[in-house]
Amino acid sequence: MTWLDVPSDSPFGVANLPYGVFAPAGGEPRAGVRIGDAVVDLATVLGDKVFAEPTLNAFLAQGRTRWHEVRSRIVELLTDVRHAGVVRPALHRLADVRLLLPIAVGDYVDFYASEHHASNVGRIFRPDTEPLTPNWKHLPIGYHGRSGTIVVSQTPIARPQGQRKTPADPEPVFGPSQRLDIEAEVGFVVGTPSRWGTPVAQRDFAEHVFGVCLVSDWSARDLQAWEYVPLGPFLAKSFATSVSPWIVPLEALEHARVAPPPRDRELLPYLQDSENWGLDLSLEVRLNGESVSRPPFSSMYWTPAQMLAHMTINGASVRTGDFYASGTVSGPEREQRGSLLELSWGGKEPITLSDGTIRTFLEDGDEVVITATAPGPGDSRIGFGEVAGRILGTIPL
Amino acid sequence: MTWLDVPSDSPFGVANLPYGVFAPAGGEPRAGVRIGDAVVDLATVLGDKVFAEPTLNAFLAQGRTRWHEVRSRIVELLTDVRHAGVVRPALHRLADVRLLLPIAVGDYVDFYASEHHASNVGRIFRPDTEPLTPNWKHLPIGYHGRSGTIVVSQTPIARPQGQRKTPADPEPVFGPSQRLDIEAEVGFVVGTPSRWGTPVAQRDFAEHVFGVCLVSDWSARDLQAWEYVPLGPFLAKSFATSVSPWIVPLEALEHARVAPPPRDRELLPYLQDSENWGLDLSLEVRLNGESVSRPPFSSMYWTPAQMLAHMTINGASVRTGDFYASGTVSGPEREQRGSLLELSWGGKEPITLSDGTIRTFLEDGDEVVITATAPGPGDSRIGFGEVAGRILGTIPL
Repeated sequence: MTWLDVPSDSPFGVANLPYGVFAPAGGEPRAGVRIGDAVVDLATVLGDKVFAEPTLNAFLAQGRTRWHEVRSRIVELLTDVRHAGVVRPALHRLADVRLLLPIAVGDYVDFYASEHHASNVGRIFRPDTEPLTPNWKHLPIGYHGRSGTIVVSQTPIARPQGQRKTPADPEPVFGPSQRLDIEAEVGFVVGTPSRWGTPVAQRDFAEHVFGVCLVSDWSARDLQAWEYVPLGPFLAKSFATSVSPWIVPLEALEHARVAPPPRDRELLPYLQDSENWGLDLSLEVRLNGESVSRPPFSSMYWTPAQMLAHMTINGASVRTGDFYASGTVSGPEREQRGSLLELSWGGKEPITLSDGTIRTFLEDGDEVVITATAPGPGDSRIGFGEVAGRILGTIPL
Repeated sequence: MTWLDVPSDSPFGVANLPYGVFAPAGGEPRAGVRIGDAVVDLATVLGDKVFAEPTLNAFLAQGRTRWHEVRSRIVELLTDVRHAGVVRPALHRLADVRLLLPIAVGDYVDFYASEHHASNVGRIFRPDTEPLTPNWKHLPIGYHGRSGTIVVSQTPIARPQGQRKTPADPEPVFGPSQRLDIEAEVGFVVGTPSRWGTPVAQRDFAEHVFGVCLVSDWSARDLQAWEYVPLGPFLAKSFATSVSPWIVPLEALEHARVAPPPRDRELLPYLQDSENWGLDLSLEVRLNGESVSRPPFSSMYWTPAQMLAHMTINGASVRTGDFYASGTVSGPEREQRGSLLELSWGGKEPITLSDGTIRTFLEDGDEVVITATAPGPGDSRIGFGEVAGRILGTIPL
């Protein structure tokens, strides 16, 4: 229990302590930990310059032992009132600071790890074939995304332009995307780099991955449908990917670990489950303030440990700041689908909002907010905060 | 003409002056320019600390006006013998230095811009359908690759492991790739960043792209065939991409500019050709010292200016150090194909080397060297040097 004035049921109590980068009014960006609705300036309370940098990368590179030491020290500072004199001058109200992108992203990989999502997309995009491709149950499918356009929550998103072509169009048409979508995802931040040529085994997942955040993977479905054969999505995804400002350390998620779903096929040894790295995160997607979906991350077929093992099995290395996302989180039920593509079934079944307006895809001015919590110790919840973004019109050429 | 002892027909005369990063024996990495078989230490002769950094990024970020100033000053130093006293102490023999990866790579994109290559691959991988997908002539297809595994020429390449499954296999098989291939490509290095939300027009290509190098895009065809549907190549490409150490500035390639091939379809306005940004580079691929292909870059359907315009048309930004490659360069003739996949037609038509051995794909110990030259002023040639790599066996798990 912290000596700070934080409600005992706060999702940002001492069992959570997510890391972020903030700028106080008129001040330089620096690392902080969230407690309740306050941010602790870590460089000040810990006297370590690694936290005075504008990203968490230098700290993440220090490795798991150091991550644990720092977390233990912060818990001590926040739970023993004798440290109040040290901590109080380093506290900022959340409302008084600007939250920034917490990491300098190296490579960004986006997976496709929800069976429900992949099946739905298969049915919508390729109605004449099996919903899942033959490889789907044998490996976590993924692709590289654009790291230079990863932005922090609250950054406005310009509607992308590009080519689209439906079967009815004789030629491709150019213009603003008419099928702008969201994908509610969960992201994983690499701290400790791996050696080039040496795969990372699943058992070493927690040695390399520092923490978890939320991802809003903006997707232009009309651009995607036209461009993605044969080399995958490119411009449909590369214009923007939003992430939540708080990285929840893996250490805070011990109570959220669950077994992944039963496996339909025997997996190759490097993908076989040993420890439970399914995570019982409860996501919620709000559109203009209204809840439209509640995707359960525990329903994901592939775990983040399997994703890391697969991503490196060919000898590819991971670096500090590398980032990978789960792909859209969709559960088995209609109200658990993590994209408008699925919620409106390719645009054919519009959803009606409480203000009476209908949606197939996003309209200019729409705001999407994704939140999540996970089980903490006892009855407590671990909060992930939110990743939010509002759609602007297209910026004129 | 330089006052240094460089043959007048050297591909590394004063009309070229490519930039790289080198480490002298016992010294720190720093920027240099190649002249003949020597390297000029730029921090020493120009007295600018930007060249004492371990990558070219800080210099590249200074923009086109500065790139031109620096090049002009270097030409002056190397052509006016009165500067010999300044330059001579800053010269290193190429044989005495280590060449390093010259840029810190941001995002890496790999295109698919050769019609001959894409048609060949289509015929080999998807024999029952049209060789080119319907989108191919409307946009330069591309996908994001892994920037963290881009390595400099001469770095040994471990054979990747992974899953493969031929139609004959009831289940996927795990092991070292049996169809390890090369792709001879040309790469483009971004200097000046663009604004997020603002596409880069083709006419601004030379404002943003600093220079050109060679790329050896190692590819595991068996991994690729199994994994690439529906989201594109991932592990088949992400284990290693080799680049040549010398970045030839765009300014040295004025005499290499040619019109691209005639267009079969009318292009959307942002892709219509205005200036000629086809480039008449003559590539050569050598396998264990023997020439196996001579791909002409002038045969590429899409120009690097179109690639940049397309990559940013959705508002995606480019950053200093971003890097994009052309995709395999293959000409219309058999002996102009830039991959073993094409040269051996999917492994069905092995090629015989002069030592009597045959190849479908790469064997352990094989060395691949890709070189190129381009027209310079008068009869001269601009050299790109080489990108070389030898295949190691798989590193044991």
